Amino acid sequence: MITQLNITGMTCGHCELSVREELSEIDGVTVVAVDHNTGVAEISSEAPIDPQLLRDAVAEAGYEVTSIA
Amino acid sequence: MITQLNITGMTCGHCELSVREELSEIDGVTVVAVDHNTGVAEISSEAPIDPQLLRDAVAEAGYEVTSIA
Repeated sequence: MITQLNITGMTCGHCELSVREELSEIDGVTVVAVDHNTGVAEISSEAPIDPQLLRDAVAEAGYEVTSIA
Repeated sequence: MITQLNITGMTCGHCELSVREELSEIDGVTVVAVDHNTGVAEISSEAPIDPQLLRDAVAEAGYEVTSIA
């Protein structure tokens, strides 16, 4: 399944990389795409991932999740 | 002596860090400050540094020097 996160605060490719790294550290998550222009990160997983884990990972990178779909 | 570089393209703290790292690799250069909000990097050195070395270092980080003073 694909989960889409809307994220505020990313301004450049370095920011994308930080978010990508933190999300990738979550068990069972493969990061498909992170785009600072749209503020969207897409992850792939077999089963649903606890939204709090996603929020925490993005916060760890220094940004904020505004919505998860 | 202090040399001031005006740089375009930095958008965040990661960008500052990239510029700081590349400038720091130049012999005799100490990086005093890099600010993505103002686009200004300040370096300290005993003697003048070849401007092309400064331009190349910033380009290596992915940004462009618009002026050196």
